[in-house]
Amino acid sequence: MCRWLAYSGTPLLLEKILYEPKHSLIDQSLHSRLGVETTNGDGFGIGWYAPDTGVDTPAIMRDVGPAWNNRNLREISQHVVSPLLFAHIRASTGTAVQQTNCHPFRRGRWMWMHNGAISGFHQMRRQLSMAVDPTLYLDIEGTTDSETMFFLALTYGLEDDPPGAVARMVGTVERIGHEHGVAAPMQMTVAVTDGSTVWAFRYASEGTARTLFYSTRVESLRALHPDAAFLQEVSDDTRLVVSEPLGDLPGAWNEVPNDSYGLVRGSTGELHPFAPQPL
Amino acid sequence: MCRWLAYSGTPLLLEKILYEPKHSLIDQSLHSRLGVETTNGDGFGIGWYAPDTGVDTPAIMRDVGPAWNNRNLREISQHVVSPLLFAHIRASTGTAVQQTNCHPFRRGRWMWMHNGAISGFHQMRRQLSMAVDPTLYLDIEGTTDSETMFFLALTYGLEDDPPGAVARMVGTVERIGHEHGVAAPMQMTVAVTDGSTVWAFRYASEGTARTLFYSTRVESLRALHPDAAFLQEVSDDTRLVVSEPLGDLPGAWNEVPNDSYGLVRGSTGELHPFAPQPL
Amino acid sequence: MCRWLAYSGTPLLLEKILYEPKHSLIDQSLHSRLGVETTNGDGFGIGWYAPDTGVDTPAIMRDVGPAWNNRNLREISQHVVSPLLFAHIRASTGTAVQQTNCHPFRRGRWMWMHNGAISGFHQMRRQLSMAVDPTLYLDIEGTTDSETMFFLALTYGLEDDPPGAVARMVGTVERIGHEHGVAAPMQMTVAVTDGSTVWAFRYASEGTARTLFYSTRVESLRALHPDAAFLQEVSDDTRLVVSEPLGDLPGAWNEVPNDSYGLVRGSTGELHPFAPQPL
Amino acid sequence: MCRWLAYSGTPLLLEKILYEPKHSLIDQSLHSRLGVETTNGDGFGIGWYAPDTGVDTPAIMRDVGPAWNNRNLREISQHVVSPLLFAHIRASTGTAVQQTNCHPFRRGRWMWMHNGAISGFHQMRRQLSMAVDPTLYLDIEGTTDSETMFFLALTYGLEDDPPGAVARMVGTVERIGHEHGVAAPMQMTVAVTDGSTVWAFRYASEGTARTLFYSTRVESLRALHPDAAFLQEVSDDTRLVVSEPLGDLPGAWNEVPNDSYGLVRGSTGELHPFAPQPL
Repeated sequence: MCRWLAYSGTPLLLEKILYEPKHSLIDQSLHSRLGVETTNGDGFGIGWYAPDTGVDTPAIMRDVGPAWNNRNLREISQHVVSPLLFAHIRASTGTAVQQTNCHPFRRGRWMWMHNGAISGFHQMRRQLSMAVDPTLYLDIEGTTDSETMFFLALTYGLEDDPPGAVARMVGTVERIGHEHGVAAPMQMTVAVTDGSTVWAFRYASEGTARTLFYSTRVESLRALHPDAAFLQEVSDDTRLVVSEPLGDLPGAWNEVPNDSYGLVRGSTGELHPFAPQPL
Repeated sequence: MCRWLAYSGTPLLLEKILYEPKHSLIDQSLHSRLGVETTNGDGFGIGWYAPDTGVDTPAIMRDVGPAWNNRNLREISQHVVSPLLFAHIRASTGTAVQQTNCHPFRRGRWMWMHNGAISGFHQMRRQLSMAVDPTLYLDIEGTTDSETMFFLALTYGLEDDPPGAVARMVGTVERIGHEHGVAAPMQMTVAVTDGSTVWAFRYASEGTARTLFYSTRVESLRALHPDAAFLQEVSDDTRLVVSEPLGDLPGAWNEVPNDSYGLVRGSTGELHPFAPQPL
Repeated sequence: MCRWLAYSGTPLLLEKILYEPKHSLIDQSLHSRLGVETTNGDGFGIGWYAPDTGVDTPAIMRDVGPAWNNRNLREISQHVVSPLLFAHIRASTGTAVQQTNCHPFRRGRWMWMHNGAISGFHQMRRQLSMAVDPTLYLDIEGTTDSETMFFLALTYGLEDDPPGAVARMVGTVERIGHEHGVAAPMQMTVAVTDGSTVWAFRYASEGTARTLFYSTRVESLRALHPDAAFLQEVSDDTRLVVSEPLGDLPGAWNEVPNDSYGLVRGSTGELHPFAPQPL
Repeated sequence: MCRWLAYSGTPLLLEKILYEPKHSLIDQSLHSRLGVETTNGDGFGIGWYAPDTGVDTPAIMRDVGPAWNNRNLREISQHVVSPLLFAHIRASTGTAVQQTNCHPFRRGRWMWMHNGAISGFHQMRRQLSMAVDPTLYLDIEGTTDSETMFFLALTYGLEDDPPGAVARMVGTVERIGHEHGVAAPMQMTVAVTDGSTVWAFRYASEGTARTLFYSTRVESLRALHPDAAFLQEVSDDTRLVVSEPLGDLPGAWNEVPNDSYGLVRGSTGELHPFAPQPL
């Protein structure tokens, strides 16, 4: 079932984002409160950009064990600084526990994470895979619905128009789902980034989608909590989008509405409605 | 923190013991009800005897990932039959997550499992290790209190007199603990076997020890539950000792009292008081 | 690049087959002599039948580390007896190192192993996957050419006519390969079994195929080597098919010719020519 | 048996040091030329300093699989820049393959790597462990001779006087070895650093020690090879100490003599004789 977080803003030691919060993502790997499962121990992954190195693409570190006991994850976190971090902890919805089934997935500068599932994905897998661009298909490495969704979005122009591509992807999944007798195929929160902008989607074919929250603007939070030292250390740009809040600071977290997507780019933060686009 | 089970009786496919019960040990790795932690995902291990092969020693299979998603464990369970099985799921109390820190531990025909901890073990580790017989010391492979307890018990004659050796081991741990200012060092349930007899201990220096239960005699259970098919398939000899009950069958589970040990050998089942023996 | 062995005959402790020979498969994981790579450390797998358990399907144990240092493999080998064993050590030809990419692959009672590669497989993967029966496709778990070959053979009737199905599979691979401008796509030795019969294929689109040997009939070997104790312990039925000889016993090993397949069933041992069947 | 490298100088993307050389350490994990074993696939580790993060201690990343197929190692290497790197690939000399038995070992700012072995270590382990300072002993996590050597050196003042501490450590190992009837206990190359200086030792109780080389001064190399672009990118300070040369550039590599140690600090490079100091 999974939980994830996306961070954008002041370059920080990853440990501050991943380990230090009161209800950190690492804590959620063991004690998730709002997820379908309390434990998310079927693998994890992080992806971060390292602009100081001159390297464009994000680094990805994924492994099959639980996040809570992984020493290398702790080590990297304590020694790497980044202005943009994706992090994900996995609870498998049926597919194999392996590195290639852990998020984030990456292509070039782009990263992708997903919480949720495509109902009936096993039956639909072939047809969905066939809808992926034939050249892109060759690079699919795992068997998750999440990765297939990513490759479908890439097929539909993710690199040019992420919201449109994701809308077309969901439209396709729903259409094929209906053909297979699945009334409500899609359950998702999705995060995608190109290293500058972070897009976060919350949608379910029916009912409530998996939980998703964004952090309040830092300036507003400083006004609310003048004594909070952490808020003095980060720029106004700094923003988190998370499956569940990392702590209890009053006023810090806002639910992303169902059927919408958010966008964070520098100091810009926007919310827009989201609807699938059948093709 | 850990949970474990010991099975003795009719040779069964391990899967029947490990996976099929309503609240199986595999289920407990994800959702323990009576343990200190609900999740026990820092490794697992099983040990079983294979008398049909002509091999005396038990086989041990241990791994660092969670039990709930381990395919090899599932495979072995579905294809191995044994009359005596030890199985353990681990929640680390501080030491490294590695194969050599997973239970059961083995020496010759003997196997050992532990749930609990020695308070202040880190500070006491050198002194406790020094109390281990110098030749035995060379074979210590990990860093857990559990393994050190095993090697101390071996030092104190486990292979000749298990209850006495365990009593002497606890006496030593408490003495050394007190020297280090730890008032109540020992918290344990322990299972040990030589392939014929299973001994199970429940003791805490102070207060309640970790939970431990034994199954009611099969004949009595058959009388209580004449419709339960499973009970027809197993001999009167069959017995389980478990950290927490594997199901809800009324009358099936009995708490092992604090400060006692049980013994199962064939159709013999005994309960005795247990007290540490300071040396 | 890989090496494998298939054993059929007297039920033996797996250790005798896997570890004890002078140039065992375990030794070959570190020091292969006739393989393309000397090291085969990108994973391993074994599959064996356990008729005494009443379970029909073979057990599979696969892992991503090297075989030479895997303790669980050693343990299983020392405590499991089987009349039919498949064992494989992997040197990846490009695809991910993960459990689902290790051999043997299994479906129902059937197991499959491969040494070699499909040239240009990455480019051909989509088209080959599309040739797999749509229902079977859903169960493909990895990304190897080996697994796709298995599923194509299943599509072409492996469970009814293994030699014919494999011939049709190779025919399809060569046809699609030629469409992609690959003149000589197939390089293979393949082992497949249903638990009673073992079929072993050796074929290359062009030139010499990967090495493959079968053991001489036990009766003949006993005549050649009357002092060899091991030969007294095994039945006349006993047969090995191997990527490279497990030892130096004169007269023990015979090369399987290029473009042929062998069949072992009880005391029956046959060699037949093999040619692809384009569809 | 192991191979290692130590890099000090211009901050470089780790990939340039670990993967790009013609006979890189990654290549050596599969095809070592001068090591006791050609394969070093029983784990690996890297340690690097990240001064730009403001964090003093080095990051350590260790894992039990082979280096040649580890994706996370590749990822980190492609996205991390450091002025000082330790890297090690392991061939076990008998102890368990586990993360805590991989090098480099670290304590505070200090890192330690070893190639070689203490003959008869298994028999000597208890006595050597007892010679470690009682408080330091508590932090020993593994079972290698290498780690015990590190903790002995720490006991003998490594943080104040590395060459003296290592000399006292070797003296102790030899003394205890002789007590156990081992005539020539020590076989070693060792690298140790505090983040500023790198010390490298080459010593064997008897005969030739494991191979060890240092790179020629960059200025001299530039004069020898004016067309080599790589040499223009690195400062005069840049220095490598390696188990075996990373390439064939004439004049680039110099053997560290037996019974000596080297020291690299900024532009300073020194060679000194080394002899054990019995205590």
